[in-house]
Amino acid sequence: MKILVANLGSTSFKYRLFDMAANRQLARGGIERIGSPESLCPQSKCTVEIDGRKQEKTLRVPDHAEAVRQCLAQLTDAGTGCLKSATEVSAIAFKAVHGGRISGVQRIDADVLCAMEEMNTVAPAHNPPYIAAMRQFMEKLPEIPLVAAFETDFHQTIPERNRYFAVPLEWAENWLIRRYGFHGASHRYIATRTAELLGRGDLRIISCHLGGSSSLCAIRDGKSVATSMGYSAQSGLPQNNRVGDIDPFVLPTLMEKTGKPLDEALDMLANECGLLGLSGVGADLRDIAEAAEKGNARAKLALEVYVASIRHYLGAYLVELGGADAIVFTGGIGENRPAIRTAALENLKELGIVLDEKANAAAKDEAKVSAAKSRVQVWVMPTNEELVVARLAAKLLSET
Amino acid sequence: MKILVANLGSTSFKYRLFDMAANRQLARGGIERIGSPESLCPQSKCTVEIDGRKQEKTLRVPDHAEAVRQCLAQLTDAGTGCLKSATEVSAIAFKAVHGGRISGVQRIDADVLCAMEEMNTVAPAHNPPYIAAMRQFMEKLPEIPLVAAFETDFHQTIPERNRYFAVPLEWAENWLIRRYGFHGASHRYIATRTAELLGRGDLRIISCHLGGSSSLCAIRDGKSVATSMGYSAQSGLPQNNRVGDIDPFVLPTLMEKTGKPLDEALDMLANECGLLGLSGVGADLRDIAEAAEKGNARAKLALEVYVASIRHYLGAYLVELGGADAIVFTGGIGENRPAIRTAALENLKELGIVLDEKANAAAKDEAKVSAAKSRVQVWVMPTNEELVVARLAAKLLSET
Repeated sequence: MKILVANLGSTSFKYRLFDMAANRQLARGGIERIGSPESLCPQSKCTVEIDGRKQEKTLRVPDHAEAVRQCLAQLTDAGTGCLKSATEVSAIAFKAVHGGRISGVQRIDADVLCAMEEMNTVAPAHNPPYIAAMRQFMEKLPEIPLVAAFETDFHQTIPERNRYFAVPLEWAENWLIRRYGFHGASHRYIATRTAELLGRGDLRIISCHLGGSSSLCAIRDGKSVATSMGYSAQSGLPQNNRVGDIDPFVLPTLMEKTGKPLDEALDMLANECGLLGLSGVGADLRDIAEAAEKGNARAKLALEVYVASIRHYLGAYLVELGGADAIVFTGGIGENRPAIRTAALENLKELGIVLDEKANAAAKDEAKVSAAKSRVQVWVMPTNEELVVARLAAKLLSET
Repeated sequence: MKILVANLGSTSFKYRLFDMAANRQLARGGIERIGSPESLCPQSKCTVEIDGRKQEKTLRVPDHAEAVRQCLAQLTDAGTGCLKSATEVSAIAFKAVHGGRISGVQRIDADVLCAMEEMNTVAPAHNPPYIAAMRQFMEKLPEIPLVAAFETDFHQTIPERNRYFAVPLEWAENWLIRRYGFHGASHRYIATRTAELLGRGDLRIISCHLGGSSSLCAIRDGKSVATSMGYSAQSGLPQNNRVGDIDPFVLPTLMEKTGKPLDEALDMLANECGLLGLSGVGADLRDIAEAAEKGNARAKLALEVYVASIRHYLGAYLVELGGADAIVFTGGIGENRPAIRTAALENLKELGIVLDEKANAAAKDEAKVSAAKSRVQVWVMPTNEELVVARLAAKLLSET
């Protein structure tokens, strides 16, 4: 069975093609600048990489459905492709963010899209582009099954004590006002891979997915028991341009000071805050770290707030799990910023956590970076969300 | 110097009188049902307790100024009083909640009241009744100096990493949208008293003030470095009827489902949530615990969410402090509910925290309740916010 896992932006389409029987990635590729006006020259760059060989062409790609067609054309190219026919693709699978009342792994149909649409105000950056592209695929490529693996799925095992806000129970039960959690594919991958590497499943893991969007997850025996994102993906740690945890009672002040209505105030929380807002430098941690090194005080503050937030949830999850067997760093920042890992774990010897600074500085791919005397193992581990999504989709297809 | 510390409710006035030179409490008392209609019989119960002797009478007390006059009359009674003259009272001091731009310990004047008024929407349960009574005292009892010790004062030492939300720095600097922290008098008392009991000041303390209103505070070397309440006193742990931490992106859903505007939605968060909303039983933890014991599932859930929230912040502060020397429980729940303390510290042996269950069950007044093998000392300690307020007020008066 072959599964194409798609990652959608409002003007981009990235994908990986997996052969599930062989448990390997066959190809990866992407198409940029989708939807450029017809009057212009073709300007969508379509790339594909098969067995290390890269192909690239520039075409006119008016929409996401055409992007999929183009990608399938490249994959089935008689000379350079890896598929004999597009019908070999059993499904296009997506990492879908917020389905509210619908979670798990789902064949995409009108009701799934409707459930996602209901959460548009809660996931304004994530849901709308996915819904638009999925709808287009359903209409224009009806022959290919579509599967959504919801980011909330892995967190369905979170116990009630960590799932409910202190609101009337009816709000939680009837209106689903409660914590969902996101980054499920990544945290699930870390849970599985850490168990493989440590050779046992009965582990207490704190998975730190740190990237453009960041969350921590407490995992016991392979199951999520708490995570830092709640009702929306704007909560928890500071995100690239999204606010993270904040008291809703700031809203009247914010609205009064800016003269803006609620929806615009929430828009600001979802677009002008996080690392971008605090640092005033940009949304990318690399730029912020560079500015901080050059002495920019705001950039330094943004890094400190970000690290304090990682430490906040790290502590909460140490207590939730009654200690930990492994702390794992993943995601663009988690994998590639040794200084953030050092700061996140500084001064925790008394709690059994000691980094091997040399190993930490040198870490590449999968690496254990804790000192021999550290009771808790610390790892750096590249995540593989697409593989998780492909596996979940394959499981669904083989069961139905 | 003698200081009267007042605790105001919308229809009540409780007080303690301290002799600062002798460092002791001279009297305590209270007046209930203030403001009952003139047409009715007198029905305000006025009690005073001096040296263990209790006096009580029922009078007509139309407002808070009259309540103070009545209290002074009882304290200066030729037969039973403890003061020769009301002029012996150097000041009436208050534990004021939210002054926004004004914190610290302040002589109450028009600007202080104005600053408090600016925070009315943020502290709807706390600021309005205090402002009303203080204004009355200023007008009707101009001869007595008034001092406000703000609950935010102790938290002014919180470092920026724990003080700032991930919002544009201008919001924090110009509009003061940041974490303040409350229960300052109680956490300050615990910091001071724990240092006395343990015989040293260089301590890492986690102060757990658990009561009708609850917060945790991380204290290093006597100074607050983090606390669970943020911009408003509706944040942090679930409170009696206030929500605690919640994602602001629930607001559009809540407004859509209830058809209510923002101010009413926030009112619900401030009045219909917390332990009351979740349990459906009541706002008092004693009633909830009783219902839970009888098998009420919602009451049990409310207790679990409350304990999970204590553990969340406990863990965060263990990491903030790099371990702890003492965990201290105080407040109505913290002092009197051994089962909550047990649940809050369950399964933390790996982090160096072990309760002595026998000592915990038997704890009265000040008691160490950790096991001998516990690396972290655990204490139960009655707080004394009024004494702290009296000391702060006396210091201000002696300096000015």
